[in-house]
Amino acid sequence: MTENPPFSPALLPAGFVDLLTPDARTQAQGVAALMDVFTSHGYDPVRPPLMEFEDTYLAGAGAALAEQGFRVMDPDTRRMMVLRPDITPQVARMAGTRLSGVPRPLRVSYAGACVVVAPVAAEESGRQIMQAGIELIGPDSPEADAEVMSIGAEALSRLGVRGVSFDLTMPPFIPALLEEAGVPQAERPALLRALDRKDAAAVAEHGGALAATLIALLDASGAAEHAVARLMEITLPEQATAIVRRLVATVGALRERCPGLSLTVDPVEFRGWKYHTGVCVTLFAQGRSEELGRGGRYRCNDNEPACGLTFRPDVLCRLIPAAAPRPRVYLASDCDHAQAAELRARGHATIGGFLSGAQAVEEARRLGCGFVLSGADCVALS
Amino acid sequence: MTENPPFSPALLPAGFVDLLTPDARTQAQGVAALMDVFTSHGYDPVRPPLMEFEDTYLAGAGAALAEQGFRVMDPDTRRMMVLRPDITPQVARMAGTRLSGVPRPLRVSYAGACVVVAPVAAEESGRQIMQAGIELIGPDSPEADAEVMSIGAEALSRLGVRGVSFDLTMPPFIPALLEEAGVPQAERPALLRALDRKDAAAVAEHGGALAATLIALLDASGAAEHAVARLMEITLPEQATAIVRRLVATVGALRERCPGLSLTVDPVEFRGWKYHTGVCVTLFAQGRSEELGRGGRYRCNDNEPACGLTFRPDVLCRLIPAAAPRPRVYLASDCDHAQAAELRARGHATIGGFLSGAQAVEEARRLGCGFVLSGADCVALS
Repeated sequence: MTENPPFSPALLPAGFVDLLTPDARTQAQGVAALMDVFTSHGYDPVRPPLMEFEDTYLAGAGAALAEQGFRVMDPDTRRMMVLRPDITPQVARMAGTRLSGVPRPLRVSYAGACVVVAPVAAEESGRQIMQAGIELIGPDSPEADAEVMSIGAEALSRLGVRGVSFDLTMPPFIPALLEEAGVPQAERPALLRALDRKDAAAVAEHGGALAATLIALLDASGAAEHAVARLMEITLPEQATAIVRRLVATVGALRERCPGLSLTVDPVEFRGWKYHTGVCVTLFAQGRSEELGRGGRYRCNDNEPACGLTFRPDVLCRLIPAAAPRPRVYLASDCDHAQAAELRARGHATIGGFLSGAQAVEEARRLGCGFVLSGADCVALS
Repeated sequence: MTENPPFSPALLPAGFVDLLTPDARTQAQGVAALMDVFTSHGYDPVRPPLMEFEDTYLAGAGAALAEQGFRVMDPDTRRMMVLRPDITPQVARMAGTRLSGVPRPLRVSYAGACVVVAPVAAEESGRQIMQAGIELIGPDSPEADAEVMSIGAEALSRLGVRGVSFDLTMPPFIPALLEEAGVPQAERPALLRALDRKDAAAVAEHGGALAATLIALLDASGAAEHAVARLMEITLPEQATAIVRRLVATVGALRERCPGLSLTVDPVEFRGWKYHTGVCVTLFAQGRSEELGRGGRYRCNDNEPACGLTFRPDVLCRLIPAAAPRPRVYLASDCDHAQAAELRARGHATIGGFLSGAQAVEEARRLGCGFVLSGADCVALS
């Protein structure tokens, strides 16, 4: 025992926090609301474990996350285990193993904590990351992408999160275009950096024969309908054209389901995507730099097509009103316990006490109660 | 990517499992029901992190758990962190730090996953352990112990778990008695083993002057009223008497709140308790060897009295009926989407589809749906 913790200024490691009430309750209720929306669309919950064997986790979609997870040795088998940095690769594993015999489309949902060695993005502070999401496994179509994103939009609406922008990207597009256009390997790093910075001058400098196309692509970003119209005007090689057509079809399918959604497209964005193979989406709230969620198309362990969307409930819950507290009732020593149970059933919190009369009132105030139950009478404190 | 995971027979490390539907949903609903009971008694939820600095975690109640937690190094600070094997020590830390200014009695609840290096008890298989529980911090009284246990009983009743036995022990009792009676240190290990095995012959052999008392104590176990009556007849030294009186008072306070509770007492039991300092309780369902929960009296980091009870929702959820599935409705391509939303709001799960007519019916059956929504008509499949 120590009277004072030895490291009070940094009681918890960076990126780990104690959530108190009401934040802990708000997050629990937020996750329950997300899961309710997911299951209402037939996405059945699964709960993969916090840890797996490293080689199992890294086989498949998890391979791209090798640097993000803490590792420990399993003392039983002396094999390395990884503390999951992301749940999606676990669902991809399950889809290829225990769930391989379940009819497709397979729809699953999940909610749980992940831990990353370092915050994933510069603007983030968390290393313990709550995830809640869905995966649609089997179909590879714009309609499947749109289903996943539209359920995401419905979930945000249920939580009361307004002003969210769905930013679509297609991470394989630029790499495929550079490959197809025969851009020399030596030129690619500088060109990718220039595209990443949206630096038209540097793109012109390093783009060679592709410079004009790439600059046109830089310009074909922004509100989805504007971007789509611009993209359609740009002549591209075959594979790059197929990727663009798929994006355009996804925008169309999503628009049909969510006419009012704030939707942007950035065709040259590719950073920060690990295992994705098609159209991807990042969700931002207006005026905030932290992601609310992200997702997109990828392949399961057995190469089956899949599309997912993962929310960050810890970020989301900072944008919604705190969960309403229960009215607090102090139970005086002479209270009627059946009445106390009745109050609990009606949504009150009853605080067990051992005092009565004026002492009970004083104690109730000290404990933040708005009511005192004495006998069967529940009296509001002024 | 691998077509077949390399270690299919042991895809997950021992003690880690994938929960599927309905188990994942049953557990989530079970945890939500437990938390609802806890908060209805004013136990406000907190959510400490999955990992802490080892020295912070081990300062205080966590010290006794040093061997149970996986450790990893924090790359930022090069200090060791521990993946929590138990949440209670975290609450004890919070009580002495961030929550030190909150009025007492302090009542908090929590739910979350823990990971132990090896299963805690021989009959257990899990290394990822879900915990949901409460801590009552400040008062040190039989009434406080009884409050915590009676809320536990109410929570089990809410879940529909029947036939649970509350087995009371007082882990400090035997060590205090041996000390007070001056049993030589050299004799104690053999004597403790004999008591642990309830082996009266061995107790007689190693008990010396205390043998008759210890054999009487062995007999003073079983149904609470029987045990209490026997205990009151045994002459004990001062400190041991005080411990027994406290147990008797706790039984009385608990009986007053829960007249029908199945309650046993074992005064000589002491194994398996780590940081507890007073009356403890273990919860078992009839005919099962796995613990449903456990708790008792301990001291927070700053030596403040506390009493807690922690449930094991993963074990509990094997004893309750599976969560009811939502009726599944296949959405034919011509379905009325407002009607689909209405069905979801009424508790159905709607499964997005792209077929209509006879094809939709066939597809609905293949996907396990009991209904097809075509236009605004929701038709039950025969």
